[in-house]
Amino acid sequence: MRKFINRPQDFVTQSLEGMAAAHAGRIVVHLNPTFVRRADAPVKGKVALISGGGSGHEPMHAGFVGPGMLDAACPGQVFTSPTPDQMLEATRAVNGGAGVLNIVKNYSGDVMNFEMAAELAHAEGIRIANILIDDDAAVKDSLYTQGRRGTGTTVLAEKICGAAAERGYALDQVAALCRRVNLGGRSMGVALSSCTVPAKGSPTFALSENEMEFGIGIHGEAGRQRMDLRTADEIAEMLATSILDDPAYSRLTREWDAARGTWSEVELVSQPFQKGDALLAFVNGMGGTPLAELYVLYRKLDEVCSKRGYTIRRNLIGSFMTSLEMQGASITLLRLDSETIDLWDAPVHTPGLRWGA
Amino acid sequence: MRKFINRPQDFVTQSLEGMAAAHAGRIVVHLNPTFVRRADAPVKGKVALISGGGSGHEPMHAGFVGPGMLDAACPGQVFTSPTPDQMLEATRAVNGGAGVLNIVKNYSGDVMNFEMAAELAHAEGIRIANILIDDDAAVKDSLYTQGRRGTGTTVLAEKICGAAAERGYALDQVAALCRRVNLGGRSMGVALSSCTVPAKGSPTFALSENEMEFGIGIHGEAGRQRMDLRTADEIAEMLATSILDDPAYSRLTREWDAARGTWSEVELVSQPFQKGDALLAFVNGMGGTPLAELYVLYRKLDEVCSKRGYTIRRNLIGSFMTSLEMQGASITLLRLDSETIDLWDAPVHTPGLRWGA
Repeated sequence: MRKFINRPQDFVTQSLEGMAAAHAGRIVVHLNPTFVRRADAPVKGKVALISGGGSGHEPMHAGFVGPGMLDAACPGQVFTSPTPDQMLEATRAVNGGAGVLNIVKNYSGDVMNFEMAAELAHAEGIRIANILIDDDAAVKDSLYTQGRRGTGTTVLAEKICGAAAERGYALDQVAALCRRVNLGGRSMGVALSSCTVPAKGSPTFALSENEMEFGIGIHGEAGRQRMDLRTADEIAEMLATSILDDPAYSRLTREWDAARGTWSEVELVSQPFQKGDALLAFVNGMGGTPLAELYVLYRKLDEVCSKRGYTIRRNLIGSFMTSLEMQGASITLLRLDSETIDLWDAPVHTPGLRWGA
Repeated sequence: MRKFINRPQDFVTQSLEGMAAAHAGRIVVHLNPTFVRRADAPVKGKVALISGGGSGHEPMHAGFVGPGMLDAACPGQVFTSPTPDQMLEATRAVNGGAGVLNIVKNYSGDVMNFEMAAELAHAEGIRIANILIDDDAAVKDSLYTQGRRGTGTTVLAEKICGAAAERGYALDQVAALCRRVNLGGRSMGVALSSCTVPAKGSPTFALSENEMEFGIGIHGEAGRQRMDLRTADEIAEMLATSILDDPAYSRLTREWDAARGTWSEVELVSQPFQKGDALLAFVNGMGGTPLAELYVLYRKLDEVCSKRGYTIRRNLIGSFMTSLEMQGASITLLRLDSETIDLWDAPVHTPGLRWGA
């Protein structure tokens, strides 16, 4: 394994210990159960945001803990869901009295465990909201999900909702905003190589030098199609077109009804993109792809969007939601409005995303 | 080649075009000759900073153009020096009347071409200073250099001197500061894999899965020693120890004497680190290494520094000076004082490094 690791079983903990040392005074890392929180949490009267999921996607999520984004993150082992006790402890630690929003990527393990944690927190009198991110236009169901997977829109939702919470939005308002961001975002990814989970020691799948996997998930799970490697322009156009041509998508989602203390099924519909939409374009590297190549993809994405009548109003380019050292990239497009543009621009101060005051 | 590219010969230009589209209004990309400048350049009365070098190291240098850092960057082809006409055009474009500082990594081609550009700019009446970065503790001479190579300290010098220029330091003062930062910084790198230059299409060198190249340069050029792959802790300790135990290093450097309009040889000495030094610790990924692994390295680096009586006062962790998709990392340690800490903390707003207002 070409990796900077010690024992595979220590990888996640030691990486978090490195984060704690590097960002002391800004984040605090708890072990047993494991979670990362803002050093100044709980922030009294502010809605707290928690996310989490398997490790191996850094900086997501632990790298997004800080003012203007998450209050806590619960990292599981590599590509493995965190457990309800991690989430419950994080919830207790960051609840400032205004309630806690869980932002949950739609992977079965994450969903189940965040639901259990929500129920336990509710039983302790903590107000909870629980919003799923299921923005991946590649697949309807997958190996690890019922319905679409949660991918790039997660990062954008964490940033936008984090800013809203900072501004004093109430729990219901932050939850409604998160739901709206999810419904306005769509993603597609492509892998040029596999990645190696430390505990396994060999690549998750095999991909020859002249192949690519189109519609990949963030764990290396198969996508829509394996095909011959194309040029950057062709790939950018395929990704952009798949997203922009994605039709309306309707699903039944379980959301927590805090008033009734139970889960309720709600039907949510993502409307397709429409000419004239203002967009946030997020070109994300999967961990082993150089930044210079992401800009080559962005160049074509910008051209495709412009030709089709969309305006990219904001962009984010870099490796923010990775799959270990996978060579690959994903594109997320998010419909913006004046409120979400303003929240996007608001200050954020985390290890992984930082701007403004 | 597992790369998002179109034709290899278009890679650099198209990547820059993507940058231009993504950061319109903040940077301007000129082609023929190629350079990237601040959109608001020239900034009247401010010393301008220019750097440059081969492409393939992104975000360095083009990603460091913006308020608080560089005024312009001159990107060559991948791993190939830019030409004097690029540098001269950039110099003309960003000179705001207070002079121009060239920050030059010590690679023979870069050095020669920046020297030629400095002479041409001088002939046009532009005040120039020219400071070499030669901080790599790995080698005394290398394939492409006389003396030590310029590596991670370059990024730190660009940030610190950029802040100084923004604050109104005169050309001589910024140059003296840059010289001081260079003398206070030392770097060591290690590669776990090679990388592939697009125009060549095959890896620069071969490295088996269980080997590493210790003391690597940023172009994949051989380092001190090829050896069996070690654990992250062993590697971090080897890198840190090589830097901290590096003795005084003396060299003759050519610097431009603007008053006399000629080059003069000056003897510069890097003093070794001393117990009690306040340090900036920069753990840099080479492009194909996940952030989570860099934190595992940082964890041990922090421990080694602390045990040996050094205090890490600031840190930077991420892939800022890369070698395409190479798996590897470098550590740079820089001696800090109150002035450089203050300049480090000052606002910076570039595509690749951003904080503060």
